[in-house]
Amino acid sequence: MATNQSPVTNPPTQLFLRAALGETTERPPVWLMRQAGRILPQYRALRLRFPDFKAFVKTPEAAAEATLQPVDELGVDAAIVFSDILVVPEAMGLNYEMIEAKGPRFPKTIESQHDVEALRSGAEAAESLEYVYEALRVSKRALADRVPLIGFAGAPWTILAYMVEGSGSKTFSKARRLLYTEPVLAHTLLQKITDTTIAYLRQQVVAGADLLQLFDSWAGELPAAHYRAFAVPYLRQICEAMPEVPKTVFAKGAWFALEDLVGLPCQVIGLDWNIDPAFAKQKIGGGKVLQGNLDPCALYADTQTIEKETVAMLRAFGGNHIANLGHGVYPDTPLDGVRAFVGAVKNFQY
Amino acid sequence: MATNQSPVTNPPTQLFLRAALGETTERPPVWLMRQAGRILPQYRALRLRFPDFKAFVKTPEAAAEATLQPVDELGVDAAIVFSDILVVPEAMGLNYEMIEAKGPRFPKTIESQHDVEALRSGAEAAESLEYVYEALRVSKRALADRVPLIGFAGAPWTILAYMVEGSGSKTFSKARRLLYTEPVLAHTLLQKITDTTIAYLRQQVVAGADLLQLFDSWAGELPAAHYRAFAVPYLRQICEAMPEVPKTVFAKGAWFALEDLVGLPCQVIGLDWNIDPAFAKQKIGGGKVLQGNLDPCALYADTQTIEKETVAMLRAFGGNHIANLGHGVYPDTPLDGVRAFVGAVKNFQY
Repeated sequence: MATNQSPVTNPPTQLFLRAALGETTERPPVWLMRQAGRILPQYRALRLRFPDFKAFVKTPEAAAEATLQPVDELGVDAAIVFSDILVVPEAMGLNYEMIEAKGPRFPKTIESQHDVEALRSGAEAAESLEYVYEALRVSKRALADRVPLIGFAGAPWTILAYMVEGSGSKTFSKARRLLYTEPVLAHTLLQKITDTTIAYLRQQVVAGADLLQLFDSWAGELPAAHYRAFAVPYLRQICEAMPEVPKTVFAKGAWFALEDLVGLPCQVIGLDWNIDPAFAKQKIGGGKVLQGNLDPCALYADTQTIEKETVAMLRAFGGNHIANLGHGVYPDTPLDGVRAFVGAVKNFQY
Repeated sequence: MATNQSPVTNPPTQLFLRAALGETTERPPVWLMRQAGRILPQYRALRLRFPDFKAFVKTPEAAAEATLQPVDELGVDAAIVFSDILVVPEAMGLNYEMIEAKGPRFPKTIESQHDVEALRSGAEAAESLEYVYEALRVSKRALADRVPLIGFAGAPWTILAYMVEGSGSKTFSKARRLLYTEPVLAHTLLQKITDTTIAYLRQQVVAGADLLQLFDSWAGELPAAHYRAFAVPYLRQICEAMPEVPKTVFAKGAWFALEDLVGLPCQVIGLDWNIDPAFAKQKIGGGKVLQGNLDPCALYADTQTIEKETVAMLRAFGGNHIANLGHGVYPDTPLDGVRAFVGAVKNFQY
């Protein structure tokens, strides 16, 4: 990747950012999606003080403590601010509840044009997320440049999916139905989400985020034509609006859209565990850094198996790579399994 | 497809079977996965008499009535026997409960070698499924050769997934974990499921099934290497054991394994709605008939949109094709939407 394409003017010294910008590194950096979470005993202890998930997310000191824990405990090469993608719909006026062991639920969902019009958006919505910005500032100070800090948001299609469906779902058929029955309304809602997300991410960068990751968790539910029409253009708007930091797009299940993702002005493409590294390299080419993609279930195995699987993955990517799992680490993963994974990457040399 | 590869000695006259055997047909045949079900008012009325799902499945006259309903009401080109893939684990000794609006639940799951050893398998297990064979016989007589009758079973990996996980799941992480932590035990269990499935499908053919479909509903949860190791060999055993009828393999989400599926001795490959027909044709080549793959959510749209989407799909496949959705029809799909889909296929000419 040519230096003049770099979104960062001073070349970074931290491994994770150097790799994200396409520099050849001595080994891949490593972090885990959901590393700030239930896998850590420190996190579980912290949560005892905040049994209510949303109160926890809204307490910047607590969120910052959770953000730092995996850096201290696991020695990962990046921190990611502890928060939730659903703070964006809430900032737009759609409250959610987090039901322990079940997931999120929206008491009111988006059903009509009136519902969409009633939503706040853009800077007006994003200003209510001051608690996330403060969590980033506190985390950034506490990190003291040990590792970079990742900010994040849900991708617009995934946020729409929750706002229309009202909860997680096996099929997201209510949300997908809207794209067939009310495509204009869907685009209006996607634009409001996009405007809010841009304002939100801009504030995250001001507060100290070094890289931004977009999570399109329900990308894999859409037919390719819908992903192209209802997801990619909004990812593009967000990436184009944030030239000052590198960006990662993780579209889970979107194997069919890799060629579309290549065209986005982002530096890193996240991959789930279904995608063979060779397939991804062939579809994406050398212009992007790839992030992923060990099966999270591999970390349930014994240390030797984890090391073998991890090294096989690192070799398959063979460079231009940020090591991660292909999905968020599962909450019941043994800490020793996580350590074996991180250790295997840190001991690896190209 | 050369005639000497045909598993049927007398050439069939019914459109669906002719297409399944690779014959060039005047239009594609059409049916819907889950066509015998909640989309039909007749089915909902029938279920009022059998509020308990399992009692319903175990009453051959009722199951046969549900099997015939979509043929009478929608004019589809094939019937599929009304049953459930989870009758196989039950026949092996693992009871399930069907919880309305939530799905299946196994009070006891497979956790150890002792649990696997305690399971019945093969003909001994399959003989307890007499009620399915009787439903096939009653259906076959009632159909009076109007359309062919499809028999089916779950693919071994998908059955293992339920037996280990105990219910549906967003990640099937318990089942996938077993493949890393106890691969030998997983293979033992898969073999017992395979032996049972072969005995079961053999009896279905004796009872009148004209074609057999294997549903690998959770194929898409596995990394490609695991699908190759833990799923494909058992699909192969089943296909090889059943030379007397054509076979369809529908591995949902297994876009990464299409090349492996090509090598199976089956005639038809089912495709989900993520897979672009052009991609499938390129990966699979002309040696298989393709079945699918309209997004089930398209049937929520207005008639004109459904016709447009259906015709676009039929053109994209362009022959060697059985029209269907890319997943089971969703229970709240309007009947008019289903009619528009079936009508669009029946009005289509190559």
